[in-house]
Amino acid sequence: METNQSYLAPINPINSEIKTLLQHVIDHKTKPLGALGILENVALQVGQIQNTLTPKLHRPVALVFAGDHGIVEEGVSPYPQVVTAQMVMNFLAGAAAINVFAKQHKMVLRVIDSGVNFDFKNTPNLVHAKIGLGTQNFLHAPAMTEIECDRALTLGQAFVNKEVDVGTNIFAFGEMGIGNTSSASCIMSLLCDLPIAKCVGRGTGLNDTGLIRKTKILRKALAKHGLESADPVQVLATFGGYEIAMMVGAMLGAAQKQSVILIDGFIATAALLIAAKMQPNIVQYCIFSHCSEEAGHQLMLTRLKVEPLLNLGLRLGEGTGAVLAYPLVQSAVNFINEMASFESAGVSEKADVR
Amino acid sequence: METNQSYLAPINPINSEIKTLLQHVIDHKTKPLGALGILENVALQVGQIQNTLTPKLHRPVALVFAGDHGIVEEGVSPYPQVVTAQMVMNFLAGAAAINVFAKQHKMVLRVIDSGVNFDFKNTPNLVHAKIGLGTQNFLHAPAMTEIECDRALTLGQAFVNKEVDVGTNIFAFGEMGIGNTSSASCIMSLLCDLPIAKCVGRGTGLNDTGLIRKTKILRKALAKHGLESADPVQVLATFGGYEIAMMVGAMLGAAQKQSVILIDGFIATAALLIAAKMQPNIVQYCIFSHCSEEAGHQLMLTRLKVEPLLNLGLRLGEGTGAVLAYPLVQSAVNFINEMASFESAGVSEKADVR
Repeated sequence: METNQSYLAPINPINSEIKTLLQHVIDHKTKPLGALGILENVALQVGQIQNTLTPKLHRPVALVFAGDHGIVEEGVSPYPQVVTAQMVMNFLAGAAAINVFAKQHKMVLRVIDSGVNFDFKNTPNLVHAKIGLGTQNFLHAPAMTEIECDRALTLGQAFVNKEVDVGTNIFAFGEMGIGNTSSASCIMSLLCDLPIAKCVGRGTGLNDTGLIRKTKILRKALAKHGLESADPVQVLATFGGYEIAMMVGAMLGAAQKQSVILIDGFIATAALLIAAKMQPNIVQYCIFSHCSEEAGHQLMLTRLKVEPLLNLGLRLGEGTGAVLAYPLVQSAVNFINEMASFESAGVSEKADVR
Repeated sequence: METNQSYLAPINPINSEIKTLLQHVIDHKTKPLGALGILENVALQVGQIQNTLTPKLHRPVALVFAGDHGIVEEGVSPYPQVVTAQMVMNFLAGAAAINVFAKQHKMVLRVIDSGVNFDFKNTPNLVHAKIGLGTQNFLHAPAMTEIECDRALTLGQAFVNKEVDVGTNIFAFGEMGIGNTSSASCIMSLLCDLPIAKCVGRGTGLNDTGLIRKTKILRKALAKHGLESADPVQVLATFGGYEIAMMVGAMLGAAQKQSVILIDGFIATAALLIAAKMQPNIVQYCIFSHCSEEAGHQLMLTRLKVEPLLNLGLRLGEGTGAVLAYPLVQSAVNFINEMASFESAGVSEKADVR
């Protein structure tokens, strides 16, 4: 496959000139100043992303990137690798959590095989974008080659462009991949410059012994590759999964197209750490849907200086948190478009004296 | 009006026998154990309320009770009393925040004049249930008579029954009433046995001077009536608004009919404090939608030993928090009904060894 590295195209900062006008509109709605809390920030942000006083969400798409991880042979997950493929089939059957929530909110759901270790046949609803049959075990070798990483980034960006071309302006990013909290923990450790122990969690449910082993293995893997101040693409190729790399490309593409990016949990935020190291402006396009129970996610959000919308103790992935937060983003857009102003409704404003 | 005090009918505890079966269903969905966090608790609770493994939400109704408060003449709010009536007209015009969010989630919105100091004419969409033209100033006299309080409770319960009769099994409770944070603060102080300073907040946006005055006035009012260990209905009649009293009756009625109760913010929780003092089992029917920015609300939730779904910095009232949380309750119900089990989806379960 050819690549022109168009995922490296610049991402502009969101419009700052319209901010004052948007704030004025928000402040004159029939409610006490600031009374809609974080929703007011979301309305402001979406208005700035779209450079309009009347933002709209069109054809929301939830993307679930799936991939397998060589590192699972070290016993970093309580689930066998085959569960990635099984869950992909479950997504295609419409019976997983992400299906239920995407259907509820009328979001288009795309399941992408970025690199599952399974040969999917007769699965027309699956997006076939397999880079390989799972990554290498990064305890012994880089997870993927630089060429593979470039392909994943390119395909992710191209995929988002296709959805934008048919009208989408908001994406929820999710993933499935047994072992991918290990990838995300290593990425976090390198990009946030934190010891691995602060970045490792129980994933799908490791016990204490499992958690200690996982930490030990990841520490060893990080030491082996010695990438302390490496560039983000090198970190991605060394520790990332195919699904994470493709998600990075898709996130970059979404911001390049002025789309709203709904970030899910620990893995999606790790992908964003890579994207943000490449192009810091991307964070301005992101709405952080929830804080995961996975240890480390709160720390990532703190580093990014962002507040998530939800805090429901979720730790499922698949993009579920992002899809569950979608109606709140819709509410923010709705109130700025549909609520009356004090003037238009004939409602008295607050007295200045109290 | 006659009353038979049917709002005093008993509220049964939610079904505990079905709990184990519900938990089994939840635990066998294709997700790691507990991975849907608080949504799993909500699914469990709604299943127990409805005594079924396949809970459903029918014809959700948002109730906004409006009433005026004599205490506003003491300067406890930065908004003039007339704003209550103006906002009711705004609700009827479909242009307030609660309209926007109720429409988004296809909830039936009922605006009830429980006692606004305004003669609404030609307003067929308003539910006319006026007990009086605003309460008395409780700095000098009880806010309402015992007869008025009984009428408000009775009408609230009757009103909910009518909605249940046409199929509703979930209610969001909201309110509008300039000055009603003062009522709620006094109720909280008495029912939570807390000094008034811990129960008073800025309401719609008091400044520091206003906050100090409000606290002083409410302390004086509490001292005047001296109700330390009074019964909840007496507290309600002395400090409550008509909208709060009617909401208490409606909440009691909803639980008596095994409906799900979505509690909004500070005022709605104060109403629940009264209802829960009358019938402690009612709390089992309640889902706490959000934690308000109003000082005191977090403390109320802590006293009730409950966790809210959202924490968005809202402080608007109208039921907005409850309506914004509704899709999360729907998601909880949807996942328990629609997700596959490990067995049905052919997905491998977690290994016990890690």
